[in-house]
Amino acid sequence: MYLDEGSALTIEKEEKKTQRKPVSFILALHNHQPVGNLPEVFAAAFENAYAPFVEVLKRYPSLKVVLHYSGSLLDWIEKNEPSFLISLRELVEKGQVELMGGGYYEPILPVIPDSDKKGQILKLSRYLKNRLGTEVSGAWLAERIWEPHLARPLFEAGIRYVVVDDAHFQEIGMKSEELLGYYITEEEGCPLKIFPISEKLRYLIPFEKIEETKEFLGSLASKSPGSLAVLADDGEKFGVWPGTHKHVYEEGWLENFFQMLTDNEDWIKTTTFSEYIKSYPPRDRVYLPAASYREMKQWAGGYWRNFLVRYPESNRMHKKMLAVRKRLPQVTRKRARQKARDFIWAAQCNCAYWHGVFGGLYLNFLRAAVYENLIKAENIIVRELHPRDNWLEIKVEDRDYDGFQEIILNNEYYGLLLSPNLGGSLWELSYRPAAVNLLDTLTRRKETYHDDLLKQEIIKNNGNESSNVNNGVKTIHKRFAVKEDGLQDFLVYDRYPRGALLDHFLPPETDLDSFSRGTFTETGDFLLQPYKAEIERLQGKVTVSFQRRGAVDKGELLLRKKIFLETSSQSIKIEYNLQNTGEKELPFKFGSEFNLAFLSGDSPERYYHIPGRALGETHLAGRGEEEEVEELMIFDEWRKLEVALRFSPAARVWRFPIETVSQSEGGLERVYQQSVIVPNWDLTLGSGADSNFNIELCINS
Amino acid sequence: MYLDEGSALTIEKEEKKTQRKPVSFILALHNHQPVGNLPEVFAAAFENAYAPFVEVLKRYPSLKVVLHYSGSLLDWIEKNEPSFLISLRELVEKGQVELMGGGYYEPILPVIPDSDKKGQILKLSRYLKNRLGTEVSGAWLAERIWEPHLARPLFEAGIRYVVVDDAHFQEIGMKSEELLGYYITEEEGCPLKIFPISEKLRYLIPFEKIEETKEFLGSLASKSPGSLAVLADDGEKFGVWPGTHKHVYEEGWLENFFQMLTDNEDWIKTTTFSEYIKSYPPRDRVYLPAASYREMKQWAGGYWRNFLVRYPESNRMHKKMLAVRKRLPQVTRKRARQKARDFIWAAQCNCAYWHGVFGGLYLNFLRAAVYENLIKAENIIVRELHPRDNWLEIKVEDRDYDGFQEIILNNEYYGLLLSPNLGGSLWELSYRPAAVNLLDTLTRRKETYHDDLLKQEIIKNNGNESSNVNNGVKTIHKRFAVKEDGLQDFLVYDRYPRGALLDHFLPPETDLDSFSRGTFTETGDFLLQPYKAEIERLQGKVTVSFQRRGAVDKGELLLRKKIFLETSSQSIKIEYNLQNTGEKELPFKFGSEFNLAFLSGDSPERYYHIPGRALGETHLAGRGEEEEVEELMIFDEWRKLEVALRFSPAARVWRFPIETVSQSEGGLERVYQQSVIVPNWDLTLGSGADSNFNIELCINS
Repeated sequence: MYLDEGSALTIEKEEKKTQRKPVSFILALHNHQPVGNLPEVFAAAFENAYAPFVEVLKRYPSLKVVLHYSGSLLDWIEKNEPSFLISLRELVEKGQVELMGGGYYEPILPVIPDSDKKGQILKLSRYLKNRLGTEVSGAWLAERIWEPHLARPLFEAGIRYVVVDDAHFQEIGMKSEELLGYYITEEEGCPLKIFPISEKLRYLIPFEKIEETKEFLGSLASKSPGSLAVLADDGEKFGVWPGTHKHVYEEGWLENFFQMLTDNEDWIKTTTFSEYIKSYPPRDRVYLPAASYREMKQWAGGYWRNFLVRYPESNRMHKKMLAVRKRLPQVTRKRARQKARDFIWAAQCNCAYWHGVFGGLYLNFLRAAVYENLIKAENIIVRELHPRDNWLEIKVEDRDYDGFQEIILNNEYYGLLLSPNLGGSLWELSYRPAAVNLLDTLTRRKETYHDDLLKQEIIKNNGNESSNVNNGVKTIHKRFAVKEDGLQDFLVYDRYPRGALLDHFLPPETDLDSFSRGTFTETGDFLLQPYKAEIERLQGKVTVSFQRRGAVDKGELLLRKKIFLETSSQSIKIEYNLQNTGEKELPFKFGSEFNLAFLSGDSPERYYHIPGRALGETHLAGRGEEEEVEELMIFDEWRKLEVALRFSPAARVWRFPIETVSQSEGGLERVYQQSVIVPNWDLTLGSGADSNFNIELCINS
Repeated sequence: MYLDEGSALTIEKEEKKTQRKPVSFILALHNHQPVGNLPEVFAAAFENAYAPFVEVLKRYPSLKVVLHYSGSLLDWIEKNEPSFLISLRELVEKGQVELMGGGYYEPILPVIPDSDKKGQILKLSRYLKNRLGTEVSGAWLAERIWEPHLARPLFEAGIRYVVVDDAHFQEIGMKSEELLGYYITEEEGCPLKIFPISEKLRYLIPFEKIEETKEFLGSLASKSPGSLAVLADDGEKFGVWPGTHKHVYEEGWLENFFQMLTDNEDWIKTTTFSEYIKSYPPRDRVYLPAASYREMKQWAGGYWRNFLVRYPESNRMHKKMLAVRKRLPQVTRKRARQKARDFIWAAQCNCAYWHGVFGGLYLNFLRAAVYENLIKAENIIVRELHPRDNWLEIKVEDRDYDGFQEIILNNEYYGLLLSPNLGGSLWELSYRPAAVNLLDTLTRRKETYHDDLLKQEIIKNNGNESSNVNNGVKTIHKRFAVKEDGLQDFLVYDRYPRGALLDHFLPPETDLDSFSRGTFTETGDFLLQPYKAEIERLQGKVTVSFQRRGAVDKGELLLRKKIFLETSSQSIKIEYNLQNTGEKELPFKFGSEFNLAFLSGDSPERYYHIPGRALGETHLAGRGEEEEVEELMIFDEWRKLEVALRFSPAARVWRFPIETVSQSEGGLERVYQQSVIVPNWDLTLGSGADSNFNIELCINS
């Protein structure tokens, strides 16, 4: 705030004295690894990027930079590389580094509750204060996702500035020459300063020739007093992205870059956000609409929250997060509540909720980490509410915000979500003791880059980091690579979303091949259609009864499906009754499809087993058909789970994997998502005749 | 919410039985007159639009419509046309009319505090419940301004649906065929249903041939079960907009339209939002970014809140509103607090804060109503805090969010806002006893339609409502008219914003003509430049001292300006001291510019007066020069104000009006905004010499 003529004028006068026209330059790196990322990825990123960056920086003590580390990364560093924090603290104390805060677990702020926005920010600020001795006044916004009402919770959490993309300002027609400084906004009177990031610099640094950055800075110099250029971007561009470690460190790009900045200190003033704010007033007031960087806008379809619509899988995580969060105040013991709250915050880590260049939603271990944290939080909540084991919760609510009510059943072992409107299907199968949701499945859908896979000339990424580098390292956005040959064969798109208890009526001749390829004919009108539901609770047992009168071929059929769950029981029982209510005899194949998500299809630790039989091909990515099976077991030794599916009468069981083809930093890759298991029975029902099928699902650990 | 197969399916089956393909149609009218609008405008709108619409509707009892009336309009109706409320209640009870709620005083919800959003909505809902016997579940969003976080306060205020434009959905790439129903969104888990309005219908109804609407509805019929078309728009299109009363009622457009709907009831189902929600599920989830209708987006420059940046006048009202609102909790007496709160809510009425086709910000009486309500609220607050009269408040804060601190002085009579960063100028001169801000001025700036005025062939609006109608009445967006000839001569744009205590250094030969035309040369670098400020409080008196060392011609000058305010004093004293700190003799004219806003320049109730003299041309829109005046008075008999400006030594005084050219429903119009009064003195200062000028400003009522 400025009450007198201020330093801006003084600086303006000083600028006039120097020969070269000056420009302020802020280099800000955001360093993050998501909750649930693999330990070896943390270690490699540290070794290839985070550590060497700071090492090089130390050799240029006159330069200033801004650094941000997410809480999930700091947790790993503190545990595995504690001396790094000492180095960092020294740089902060010397004033060479300004640290930014933000949401501890790097959440997309607009889609989490206001109290969590504040709580997560304060958690990181406290950490930085206690461990690194610095008061934080800026917040890194995950993926620079901005919405207009953020200024208030940010301000209330002690934040005074944020950094967004120039694209945010361009949304309201502002030109690049207006973006050489910062602006001030407010919400309900809470002020916040906003710095625009230069997209041009995002593509220049560290990919293009250093001279180009110098020229660009020269072109901005002294367009107005205190002209400022900001490059704020992912620290992973400096060593983690393919080819960048060699380019940035081994080939000396960073050293040369810092040397160039040092050599030109007479006109390129490296500074930090806080220092710049002290010296220069804001350019003007500004109000920015909901915005993100250009590429994100394309990936999301215009608006970040749209990911929650495009990917029901993302929506399911998000809405479970909101549902668990809503119950948090029920925990009265403070420590337990804080513990549960921290699990919820960890589950808000953004990476699993969306998809762009990075794997994101397609990375099953990131989704699994979200569910793990949510189930752990939920476990604390239900334990508090039901201190004795004999309990059962039944809720009817529109959990996923589709306008239809779902049925939620919880007991000591399970969390189930049934959707009457979608054929009485099952969309959550959380097993509490292991904090695993076996219905953390993914439906295969078209991504725009699949077309590129089919059309473009492919550079195969053969593992040599710089093999695809021509004239410098390409930014990820310009790269196109695949991690294996023949990926196009995996471009299969699902005809329907992949859950469990999906009721298929098929022509008798349908086989595993046509079913798994999705070329079969559905002769019934039951799959994902509205079912009538009834819930009956009797002492320690709940029965959910679904029914639908529908058509099979040209006949009429009444399907009844009951799901039974008892207190303290690890068994979920499903009873089907199919009755021919028409006059025609109906021959058909009936199948109840299960999609069960394990983390890997090829691992020796995860396999099928049929009691009393040796399976030829037992891994979970296997495709096969078992005849007349009464029980199928799945062992997940890694997560210490054993899943039993029992069929009565004995069923033919089809099984095959769902594997997706998705984009990642290293190129297109194939990812195992889940195994499809379809017990099926052939039958012919005469007019009025009916038939029963029972399935029991049982998880042990 | 839907738990079984539900009514949607039943209806689908019924649709199959009818011959013609059905379509649901919702006609929703939003009726509003702003706080502070002229009584005759309320009366004319009632007579020409609101009353006859309902009269015609009564004759078609099988049709259903949705109506919204803002609280400010309902207040007027209740007082002036109470029987209308009885008619309305009957229609509601019969189920023919569904009433929508919303913010009582029609605020732009995103720019007022969350607690006010909820409070204003609940106030209107309570009114509709008590007076019209209906439970409200929908909210009209003023100007359909949507921001993503609105779902939460709306839900918390009992709102379950809103209506926005199809443009909002198009922002995320949705196509018109996807907009034939409603969607569901959420914020922090609070659900809200959103209906898109058809822009096509906004332009068809009531302007184009009825057959076109019928054809359009036919084209939408049964694209999917429950295909819905929504026309929700301003009720003023039905009788208030130029030419529409004749067209809609005298020429029978509405009667014919309702007849067409009645004749085609077998396939056009008129319905209401609540009824439609009961019968059909949402199409999908949706998340909408900040958005408004297409035209608003153009007017605002992409984003509504941008009006607060484009028009500092709007920003000043908004930021004073926030500042007064922030003090509200200081009022401990409940009734006083509620009264103050209601004044603040009334001041949040949107119309004065922006400008598009309607006068809005350019209508001085609307701005005056905002200030009147804010000052009344502030009066309650300061009275509570200072029960005795001898008080003085001094605040230093960045009131307008420009990054610089302003100085706010309050006493029993005045509220002053001084800006050190802008040359120690004055931007608020609120006189508490009359609840008037005399610095509610407007700076003349270019509007895009000014180019049209210069370029286009002009249709002069000669007062005959339908004179400019060809083949039906044009929508306002297509009309171009002017209310008087020669408006282009008034297209003058100000070189600087128009406040008070604006310090001009001018060549000695500068005259009123060049000054008022803005063709003069400013030879000093003082105007609106940063001044150093000091505040001294001594018992019942505050002195704000400004100073700046600057240049006049090629000489150096030290300007000192002191503003004195005492407790319980109606006198504001200003002392200037100008000292030549250079070596050159400096001849110049010094002027201190005041802009003082009265509501009309030509009214016989508002005039200048010089004690002991009869002025030839005394009205406030007059242009003139008074020589050697010691006192100039301005009488505003309408608002019961008397303003005295005293000069020592006696000053030459220039005075001229500021009149704007702005768009309105009836065409371009000239609006008096304020009178410029510039006491000025000629002097020649030798090296080291100085000179003093004193001004006293005194308002009485």
